[in-house]
Amino acid sequence: MSTTDPPRGRGRPRRAEADAEILDAALAMLRAGGYRELSLDEVARRAGTAKSSIYRRWPSKAALAAEIVRRDVPPPDGDLVHAFDALLNGPMGGVVASLIGEAQESAETRAIILDLLAPYRLAGDDLLGGILFRRLLGQ
Amino acid sequence: MSTTDPPRGRGRPRRAEADAEILDAALAMLRAGGYRELSLDEVARRAGTAKSSIYRRWPSKAALAAEIVRRDVPPPDGDLVHAFDALLNGPMGGVVASLIGEAQESAETRAIILDLLAPYRLAGDDLLGGILFRRLLGQ
Repeated sequence: MSTTDPPRGRGRPRRAEADAEILDAALAMLRAGGYRELSLDEVARRAGTAKSSIYRRWPSKAALAAEIVRRDVPPPDGDLVHAFDALLNGPMGGVVASLIGEAQESAETRAIILDLLAPYRLAGDDLLGGILFRRLLGQ
Repeated sequence: MSTTDPPRGRGRPRRAEADAEILDAALAMLRAGGYRELSLDEVARRAGTAKSSIYRRWPSKAALAAEIVRRDVPPPDGDLVHAFDALLNGPMGGVVASLIGEAQESAETRAIILDLLAPYRLAGDDLLGGILFRRLLGQ
Protein backbone atom coordinates (compact mmCIF):
# COMPACT_ATOMS: atom_id res chain seq x y z
CA MET A 1 0.00 0.00 0.00
CA SER A 2 1.45 3.32 -0.94
CA THR A 3 0.82 6.35 1.20
CA THR A 4 -0.94 8.25 -1.55
CA ASP A 5 -3.75 5.73 -1.89
CA PRO A 6 -7.06 6.77 -0.32
CA PRO A 7 -7.67 5.10 3.04
CA ARG A 8 -9.55 1.88 3.06
CA GLY A 9 -13.12 1.89 4.31
CA ARG A 10 -14.19 4.86 2.36
CA GLY A 11 -12.79 3.20 -0.51
CA ARG A 12 -9.42 1.96 -1.39
CA PRO A 13 -9.82 -0.71 -4.04
CA ARG A 14 -9.05 -4.08 -2.52
CA ARG A 15 -7.41 -5.15 -5.70
CA ALA A 16 -4.83 -2.39 -5.52
CA GLU A 17 -3.99 -3.50 -2.00
CA ALA A 18 -3.57 -7.09 -3.12
CA ASP A 19 -1.30 -5.94 -5.94
CA ALA A 20 0.86 -4.01 -3.50
CA GLU A 21 1.21 -7.05 -1.27
CA ILE A 22 2.09 -9.23 -4.23
CA LEU A 23 4.80 -6.76 -5.29
CA ASP A 24 6.14 -6.48 -1.75
CA ALA A 25 6.35 -10.24 -1.37
CA ALA A 26 7.98 -10.74 -4.77
CA LEU A 27 10.51 -7.96 -4.15
CA ALA A 28 11.51 -9.53 -0.84
CA MET A 29 11.95 -12.92 -2.49
CA LEU A 30 13.98 -11.49 -5.38
CA ARG A 31 16.25 -9.67 -2.95
CA ALA A 32 16.74 -12.75 -0.83
CA GLY A 33 17.22 -15.45 -3.42
CA GLY A 34 17.22 -13.95 -6.90
CA TYR A 35 15.04 -14.89 -9.83
CA ARG A 36 15.50 -18.60 -9.46
CA GLU A 37 14.04 -18.59 -5.97
CA LEU A 38 11.05 -16.45 -6.92
CA SER A 39 8.00 -18.70 -6.74
CA LEU A 40 4.51 -17.49 -7.56
CA ASP A 41 3.06 -20.07 -5.16
CA GLU A 42 5.13 -18.60 -2.36
CA VAL A 43 4.32 -15.02 -3.41
CA ALA A 44 0.61 -15.87 -3.24
CA ARG A 45 1.06 -17.46 0.19
CA ARG A 46 2.95 -14.49 1.60
CA ALA A 47 0.57 -11.95 0.07
CA GLY A 48 -2.41 -13.88 1.41
CA THR A 49 -3.99 -14.05 -2.00
CA ALA A 50 -4.83 -16.60 -4.63
CA LYS A 51 -2.36 -17.37 -7.38
CA SER A 52 -5.09 -16.40 -9.83
CA SER A 53 -4.91 -12.86 -8.44
CA ILE A 54 -1.28 -12.72 -9.51
CA TYR A 55 -2.00 -14.09 -12.96
CA ARG A 56 -4.86 -11.65 -13.40
CA ARG A 57 -2.31 -8.89 -13.53
CA TRP A 58 1.01 -10.54 -14.40
CA PRO A 59 0.85 -13.40 -16.85
CA SER A 60 4.14 -14.96 -15.75
CA LYS A 61 6.90 -14.92 -13.20
CA ALA A 62 9.02 -13.03 -15.75
CA ALA A 63 6.37 -10.31 -16.11
CA LEU A 64 6.14 -9.86 -12.35
CA ALA A 65 9.93 -9.73 -11.98
CA ALA A 66 10.24 -7.17 -14.78
CA GLU A 67 7.72 -4.91 -13.10
CA ILE A 68 9.68 -5.06 -9.90
CA VAL A 69 12.89 -4.14 -11.71
CA ARG A 70 11.06 -1.23 -13.29
CA ARG A 71 9.81 0.02 -9.93
CA ASP A 72 13.13 -0.52 -8.20
CA VAL A 73 15.41 1.12 -10.76
CA PRO A 74 14.94 4.75 -11.78
CA PRO A 75 14.23 5.18 -15.49
CA PRO A 76 17.36 6.05 -17.44
CA ASP A 77 17.98 9.57 -18.48
CA GLY A 78 21.04 11.34 -19.70
CA ASP A 79 23.89 8.88 -19.83
CA LEU A 80 22.28 5.65 -21.01
CA VAL A 81 25.50 3.66 -20.88
CA HIS A 82 26.01 4.62 -17.27
CA ALA A 83 22.38 3.81 -16.49
CA PHE A 84 22.70 0.41 -18.15
CA ASP A 85 25.80 -0.29 -16.15
CA ALA A 86 23.96 0.71 -12.97
CA LEU A 87 21.03 -1.53 -13.90
CA LEU A 88 23.11 -4.60 -14.69
CA ASN A 89 25.51 -4.22 -11.82
CA GLY A 90 23.05 -2.94 -9.24
CA PRO A 91 20.80 -4.89 -6.87
CA MET A 92 18.49 -5.97 -9.70
CA GLY A 93 21.29 -6.91 -12.10
CA GLY A 94 20.99 -10.61 -11.35
CA VAL A 95 17.26 -10.52 -12.10
CA VAL A 96 17.91 -8.82 -15.45
CA ALA A 97 20.60 -11.39 -16.27
CA SER A 98 18.22 -14.22 -15.40
CA LEU A 99 15.50 -12.75 -17.59
CA ILE A 100 17.93 -12.47 -20.49
CA GLY A 101 18.91 -16.07 -19.85
CA GLU A 102 15.30 -17.27 -19.80
CA ALA A 103 14.64 -15.25 -22.95
CA GLN A 104 16.90 -17.65 -24.86
CA GLU A 105 14.25 -20.35 -24.44
CA SER A 106 11.06 -18.32 -24.13
CA ALA A 107 9.63 -15.92 -26.69
CA GLU A 108 7.36 -14.46 -24.04
CA THR A 109 10.26 -13.64 -21.73
CA ARG A 110 12.17 -12.27 -24.69
CA ALA A 111 9.37 -9.78 -25.34
CA ILE A 112 9.36 -8.78 -21.67
CA ILE A 113 13.09 -8.15 -21.45
CA LEU A 114 13.16 -6.35 -24.80
CA ASP A 115 10.51 -4.01 -23.46
CA LEU A 116 12.43 -3.48 -20.23
CA LEU A 117 15.71 -2.73 -21.97
CA ALA A 118 14.30 -0.67 -24.86
CA PRO A 119 15.07 2.75 -23.32
CA TYR A 120 18.70 1.83 -22.77
CA ARG A 121 19.17 0.53 -26.30
CA LEU A 122 18.91 4.04 -27.64
CA ALA A 123 22.58 4.20 -26.69
CA GLY A 124 23.34 1.51 -29.28
CA ASP A 125 24.00 -2.16 -28.69
CA ASP A 126 27.71 -1.80 -29.37
CA LEU A 127 28.16 0.61 -26.50
CA LEU A 128 26.11 -1.53 -24.11
CA GLY A 129 27.48 -4.86 -25.27
CA GLY A 130 30.65 -4.91 -23.20
CA ILE A 131 28.65 -4.28 -20.05
CA LEU A 132 26.27 -7.11 -20.93
CA PHE A 133 29.13 -9.46 -21.81
CA ARG A 134 30.89 -8.90 -18.51
CA ARG A 135 27.66 -9.23 -16.53
CA LEU A 136 26.63 -12.48 -18.16
CA LEU A 137 30.06 -14.03 -18.44
CA GLY A 138 32.25 -12.25 -15.96
CA GLN A 139 34.16 -14.45 -13.59
CA MET B 1 38.95 -44.28 -23.59
CA SER B 2 40.70 -42.25 -26.20
CA THR B 3 41.35 -43.33 -29.74
CA THR B 4 44.98 -43.88 -28.86
CA ASP B 5 44.06 -46.74 -26.55
CA PRO B 6 45.03 -50.14 -27.89
CA PRO B 7 42.33 -51.69 -29.98
CA ARG B 8 40.11 -54.18 -28.32
CA GLY B 9 40.02 -57.61 -29.94
CA ARG B 10 40.58 -57.09 -33.63
CA GLY B 11 38.56 -53.98 -33.64
CA ARG B 12 37.67 -50.49 -32.89
CA PRO B 13 37.40 -49.81 -29.17
CA ARG B 14 33.78 -50.18 -28.24
CA ARG B 15 33.82 -47.17 -25.97
CA ALA B 16 35.15 -44.88 -28.69
CA GLU B 17 32.46 -46.17 -30.96
CA ALA B 18 29.80 -45.49 -28.34
CA ASP B 19 31.16 -41.96 -27.89
CA ALA B 20 30.94 -41.34 -31.62
CA GLU B 21 27.35 -42.52 -31.69
CA ILE B 22 26.48 -40.34 -28.71
CA LEU B 23 28.00 -37.30 -30.44
CA ASP B 24 26.25 -38.08 -33.71
CA ALA B 25 22.89 -38.45 -32.00
CA ALA B 26 23.32 -35.28 -29.95
CA LEU B 27 24.43 -33.27 -32.99
CA ALA B 28 21.38 -34.39 -34.94
CA MET B 29 19.11 -33.41 -32.04
CA LEU B 30 20.77 -30.01 -31.62
CA ARG B 31 20.44 -29.31 -35.32
CA ALA B 32 16.81 -30.32 -35.36
CA GLY B 33 15.48 -28.73 -32.20
CA GLY B 34 18.18 -26.68 -30.53
CA TYR B 35 19.44 -26.99 -26.99
CA ARG B 36 16.03 -27.13 -25.42
CA GLU B 37 15.11 -30.26 -27.31
CA LEU B 38 18.37 -32.03 -26.53
CA SER B 39 17.56 -34.86 -24.15
CA LEU B 40 20.16 -37.21 -22.76
CA ASP B 41 17.54 -39.94 -22.45
CA GLU B 42 16.82 -39.65 -26.16
CA VAL B 43 20.53 -39.43 -27.02
CA ALA B 44 21.10 -42.68 -25.12
CA ARG B 45 18.18 -44.32 -26.91
CA ARG B 46 19.35 -43.30 -30.36
CA ALA B 47 22.97 -44.20 -29.66
CA GLY B 48 21.87 -47.57 -28.32
CA THR B 49 23.76 -47.03 -25.10
CA ALA B 50 23.07 -46.51 -21.43
CA LYS B 51 22.69 -43.02 -20.07
CA SER B 52 25.51 -43.84 -17.69
CA SER B 53 27.80 -44.15 -20.73
CA ILE B 54 27.04 -40.54 -21.56
CA TYR B 55 27.64 -39.36 -18.02
CA ARG B 56 30.89 -41.28 -17.86
CA ARG B 57 32.32 -38.87 -20.37
CA TRP B 58 30.10 -35.75 -20.20
CA PRO B 59 28.83 -34.79 -16.79
CA SER B 60 25.87 -32.80 -18.09
CA LYS B 61 23.80 -31.90 -21.12
CA ALA B 62 25.68 -28.58 -21.22
CA ALA B 63 29.04 -30.33 -21.34
CA LEU B 64 27.92 -32.56 -24.21
CA ALA B 65 26.49 -29.60 -26.13
CA ALA B 66 29.68 -27.59 -25.66
CA GLU B 67 31.77 -30.43 -27.05
CA ILE B 68 29.57 -30.56 -30.11
CA VAL B 69 29.94 -26.82 -30.65
CA ARG B 70 33.69 -27.22 -30.35
CA ARG B 71 33.74 -30.02 -32.92
CA ASP B 72 31.37 -28.25 -35.27
CA VAL B 73 32.97 -24.81 -35.28
CA PRO B 74 36.58 -24.31 -36.36
CA PRO B 75 38.77 -22.84 -33.63
CA PRO B 76 39.17 -19.09 -34.02
CA ASP B 77 42.31 -17.71 -35.49
CA GLY B 78 43.19 -14.34 -36.87
CA ASP B 79 40.15 -12.11 -36.60
CA LEU B 80 38.57 -13.08 -33.29
CA VAL B 81 35.69 -10.63 -33.66
CA HIS B 82 34.77 -12.11 -37.01
CA ALA B 83 35.10 -15.62 -35.59
CA PHE B 84 32.86 -14.74 -32.64
CA ASP B 85 30.29 -13.33 -35.02
CA ALA B 86 30.45 -16.51 -37.09
CA LEU B 87 30.06 -18.62 -33.93
CA LEU B 88 27.08 -16.72 -32.55
CA ASN B 89 25.30 -16.28 -35.84
CA GLY B 90 26.18 -19.64 -37.37
CA PRO B 91 24.38 -22.96 -37.04
CA MET B 92 25.54 -23.42 -33.44
CA GLY B 93 24.74 -19.85 -32.37
CA GLY B 94 21.48 -20.84 -30.74
CA VAL B 95 23.21 -23.50 -28.69
CA VAL B 96 25.80 -20.98 -27.49
CA ALA B 97 23.03 -18.51 -26.61
CA SER B 98 21.18 -21.20 -24.67
CA LEU B 99 24.32 -22.14 -22.77
CA ILE B 100 24.89 -18.49 -21.85
CA GLY B 101 21.28 -18.35 -20.74
CA GLU B 102 21.58 -21.47 -18.60
CA ALA B 103 24.80 -20.11 -17.15
CA GLN B 104 22.80 -17.39 -15.42
CA GLU B 105 21.35 -20.06 -13.14
CA SER B 106 24.07 -22.70 -13.12
CA ALA B 107 27.66 -22.27 -12.00
CA GLU B 108 28.57 -25.50 -13.75
CA THR B 109 27.22 -24.31 -17.09
CA ARG B 110 28.93 -20.98 -16.53
CA ALA B 111 32.29 -22.73 -16.25
CA ILE B 112 31.57 -24.67 -19.43
CA ILE B 113 30.63 -21.64 -21.50
CA LEU B 114 33.52 -19.58 -20.13
CA ASP B 115 35.86 -22.30 -21.26
CA LEU B 116 34.23 -22.46 -24.69
CA LEU B 117 34.41 -18.70 -25.22
CA ALA B 118 37.84 -18.11 -23.68
CA PRO B 119 39.76 -18.04 -27.00
CA TYR B 120 37.44 -15.39 -28.42
CA ARG B 121 37.68 -13.18 -25.35
CA LEU B 122 41.26 -12.36 -26.20
CA ALA B 123 39.66 -9.81 -28.54
CA GLY B 124 38.24 -8.00 -25.49
CA ASP B 125 34.70 -8.08 -24.18
CA ASP B 126 33.94 -4.58 -25.47
CA LEU B 127 34.57 -5.60 -29.05
CA LEU B 128 32.53 -8.78 -28.73
CA GLY B 129 29.75 -7.29 -26.65
CA GLY B 130 27.67 -5.79 -29.44
CA ILE B 131 27.60 -9.15 -31.22
CA LEU B 132 26.49 -10.85 -28.03
CA PHE B 133 23.87 -8.21 -27.29
CA ARG B 134 22.29 -8.53 -30.71
CA ARG B 135 22.37 -12.32 -30.63
CA LEU B 136 20.73 -12.55 -27.20
CA LEU B 137 18.33 -9.66 -27.59
CA GLY B 138 17.96 -9.08 -31.30
CA GLN B 139 14.44 -9.02 -32.55
